[in-house]
Amino acid sequence: MKIALLQDCFRPCRIEENKKKIADFYKKASQEDADIVVVPSEAICGFEPEGLLDFNDVNDALTDIQKELIRSTNADTALVFDTPFALDGSFSPSLIIAYDGCIQHSLPQFDISPDWAERIITFHDESILFTFFSSIASLHVTQAMALMELIDTCIILDARPFTQDKELSRCQVLSNLALGIRNVIYANQSGFQNGYMLGGASCYYQQGKLRVQLPYFDKSESIFDTEETEWKRVQTLIPDTKEKMTKCLHHAVVAGIRDYFSQCGVSKAVVGLSGGIDSAVVLPLAVEALGRKNVFGIMMPSQFSTDHSVKDAVQLAENLQIHYEIIPIEPVYKAFMQQLEPIVKGTPFGLTEENLQARIRGTILMAAANKQGAFLLNTSNKSEASCGYGTLYGDLCGALSVLGDLYKSQVYDIARLINKRKEIIPENSIRKAPSAELHPGQKDSDSLPDYDTIEKVLRLHLEQKLGQKEIEEEGVSPKSVKRILDLFYKNVFKRHQTPPVIRLSQTCLDKDINLPLVCR
Amino acid sequence: MKIALLQDCFRPCRIEENKKKIADFYKKASQEDADIVVVPSEAICGFEPEGLLDFNDVNDALTDIQKELIRSTNADTALVFDTPFALDGSFSPSLIIAYDGCIQHSLPQFDISPDWAERIITFHDESILFTFFSSIASLHVTQAMALMELIDTCIILDARPFTQDKELSRCQVLSNLALGIRNVIYANQSGFQNGYMLGGASCYYQQGKLRVQLPYFDKSESIFDTEETEWKRVQTLIPDTKEKMTKCLHHAVVAGIRDYFSQCGVSKAVVGLSGGIDSAVVLPLAVEALGRKNVFGIMMPSQFSTDHSVKDAVQLAENLQIHYEIIPIEPVYKAFMQQLEPIVKGTPFGLTEENLQARIRGTILMAAANKQGAFLLNTSNKSEASCGYGTLYGDLCGALSVLGDLYKSQVYDIARLINKRKEIIPENSIRKAPSAELHPGQKDSDSLPDYDTIEKVLRLHLEQKLGQKEIEEEGVSPKSVKRILDLFYKNVFKRHQTPPVIRLSQTCLDKDINLPLVCR
Repeated sequence: MKIALLQDCFRPCRIEENKKKIADFYKKASQEDADIVVVPSEAICGFEPEGLLDFNDVNDALTDIQKELIRSTNADTALVFDTPFALDGSFSPSLIIAYDGCIQHSLPQFDISPDWAERIITFHDESILFTFFSSIASLHVTQAMALMELIDTCIILDARPFTQDKELSRCQVLSNLALGIRNVIYANQSGFQNGYMLGGASCYYQQGKLRVQLPYFDKSESIFDTEETEWKRVQTLIPDTKEKMTKCLHHAVVAGIRDYFSQCGVSKAVVGLSGGIDSAVVLPLAVEALGRKNVFGIMMPSQFSTDHSVKDAVQLAENLQIHYEIIPIEPVYKAFMQQLEPIVKGTPFGLTEENLQARIRGTILMAAANKQGAFLLNTSNKSEASCGYGTLYGDLCGALSVLGDLYKSQVYDIARLINKRKEIIPENSIRKAPSAELHPGQKDSDSLPDYDTIEKVLRLHLEQKLGQKEIEEEGVSPKSVKRILDLFYKNVFKRHQTPPVIRLSQTCLDKDINLPLVCR
Repeated sequence: MKIALLQDCFRPCRIEENKKKIADFYKKASQEDADIVVVPSEAICGFEPEGLLDFNDVNDALTDIQKELIRSTNADTALVFDTPFALDGSFSPSLIIAYDGCIQHSLPQFDISPDWAERIITFHDESILFTFFSSIASLHVTQAMALMELIDTCIILDARPFTQDKELSRCQVLSNLALGIRNVIYANQSGFQNGYMLGGASCYYQQGKLRVQLPYFDKSESIFDTEETEWKRVQTLIPDTKEKMTKCLHHAVVAGIRDYFSQCGVSKAVVGLSGGIDSAVVLPLAVEALGRKNVFGIMMPSQFSTDHSVKDAVQLAENLQIHYEIIPIEPVYKAFMQQLEPIVKGTPFGLTEENLQARIRGTILMAAANKQGAFLLNTSNKSEASCGYGTLYGDLCGALSVLGDLYKSQVYDIARLINKRKEIIPENSIRKAPSAELHPGQKDSDSLPDYDTIEKVLRLHLEQKLGQKEIEEEGVSPKSVKRILDLFYKNVFKRHQTPPVIRLSQTCLDKDINLPLVCR
């Protein structure tokens, strides 16, 4: 049996484009004598179409497109796809198997019922189960065992955001299933959609062996024969070590930048370069995603900047051969302070003046982005964001938060990965103590607990749902736990207004995991 | 039967405070010989506790508090409340009737089953149905009629955000029910919680007549006897005319400002005053919510400002007797342009320079707010926001968007209401054509379709879910429809980063009704 597998990002506002991708691939696969063309879940309606399905005209267009696709199928090649909720009477939420211009089977979209029979179809003398990943993942062992007795082939549709937390278990579910089912075919969406990184990594297991694996995050396709006996060796991509996970995260953020810019029709990026680790990591990621000619760096030293800040940033820009400018902020700062005289006179230097510097920088970066039709990339990380360490409308500006779902330690991991072959990021940016440089001699550690403690407390709280007392029992000092949780809850309001984050975990702080705005 | 009704805002992060409010009221009501104390839905766990219920320690605390409340009840006064999902084994989601230190009845929380019997309890010789507003609202007429035969009294718990769209139907459901049931008692939460304005307006209908009505949005309480025959006349608050709805919206935003500031522990507000209608409306609302001594106005004229802008703004500030400053932005603008020379030289004046002015103003306002420990109030309205007419990190700054869910026409309605007794807002601010004054002679109408058309198109699209063609059929020119919908979808990204909005409709653009970020 010849299977054709299509992996791509299907967007809910682009149903015509989605149809074309599917129709073109179907045509090609049909010419290559494929028996079944499998596309990911939500391939026609696009990933998470919810809000759009409220509109009648969107539903009508979707219905027409599906009818067209079905009509265009021939007798030899089946097309497998799913349809969303809220369609008109002629379609209910279902998984469709179409050929010869008609729907041949329409299976309910929800979980596998105890009665497997209705989802198992005999096709080319094989018993095939057509289903969804979430249904497979929720099977008990005994159910899975029973299933293995019944079928030769399992075809699984999915549209799954990659998350660090759940990726290994996703891989495990598939490889376990493949131990008892001759053919396991998995089709997933790939690429950036609305903050999520759809994982891709669609694959084919033959008698327990991984025969085909499409890349993470990138669009791809494969046509293969389940009767084939000669295979090239497939290198599994499973990120089951810290090093492989770092590579995977690196790949994800590069793909995220690339896709978001392309979806917005923007080719250029502006990055503010402080000499610190976060911007030093964002810059090479942006260069990889967009090309060095499309990335513009700006250093904005103040009277509080150390010499090495500009030096390190310049070195980084020159290593990457990008265009950059140095724009000192002091003249603007002075002009502001003079105009603000009626408000600030007689008050000591403090938060206002620190925020002012950050906001001047944000304004310069946005001006540079506006003038060039570019997007500003935000360089804040998850450890900072969780504690509200950042200035709204200052360093929290940007069209996209590249590192917003990565802890500071992970930013360092990616920095080391980038530098693996040759020093791109100046060692000094990696080694020096983090500092916002908003007052003389400032270090992040003056206002924040150390980053390792922040990460430990947040992981225990967000991933394991432990409360204050339980976290203390894990060996963190009560003072640190209280301080970090207080900062975390006090700063929901900041995270409400920050740029969309490339989401890489189940605990991304964008939209703040359902917390109320005022949470103290 | 003596009923005690408590109306307040119960917050999910304040379960101890919630308990105290309930316990104090129970004590008082008990001393006044109340038979039943009714509190709104989600009174203990707080309105929409979702994200917080993931944490074990929160669930444990909630369980303890509920047990304490139940233990503290005496034999003569019943306490009626509901418990949320995700509690430990001893409580499942349910509506609880407790007295004499124990749970006497525990009713399932979900919709009324066809078998009424289980929800009807005989208490003091009366047949009482204990239920939720959403269950009542979903009854068919025949079901409602059947119900009327069975019960004497209906006690309805609710925690319902006020929306312009659904308010009249909420009122109608209760008054209809009261036509066939002797006593209808409705307890609702009130006040700002996480962007929503919980409606309040808890009430008691006796034989179809409204006998008690608590205010919209404000906390309140009432203890009354259902055997009473002498009642003071109750003025219904139902906003069933445009004029009454304007009053209600005015009340909502004032209460929203008041509550949000109080929840955040902030007493002072900064408002940027442009001389235009939006800031001219926000200022008196802020003064009403916070007191004139807590509101600080800043005028920030540029070389493009017209004379009347500052004049009108000063007049407004003086009418309200608030403190204000005039801070010209030109020196800062010049300093920026000089520093930006390497980026802007040789390019024409355009969007970059317009945004720069808005961002300088945003930065000045934030500096003033930071220095005084105040919140900046955002003055953007729904018509502007829908079309992305505003500068991120500029006029879109702020801790709270006061008018963000009100169309421009509604802002004018509120202006006229404010001026009804005496001219607070200078007539000129109401009469002149809206302008952002970012380039010479600019009018909003240069870049936007007129505000009436924007409102018409948005209402048809968002409220009635009509698509482009269907809106054209309602008499709007195809060009305008396309332009407005294009702007609407192109600017989801801006609305992603703007301040939380006081939500007053089902189509509030905060969090953008489920639309993907890139929606073009």
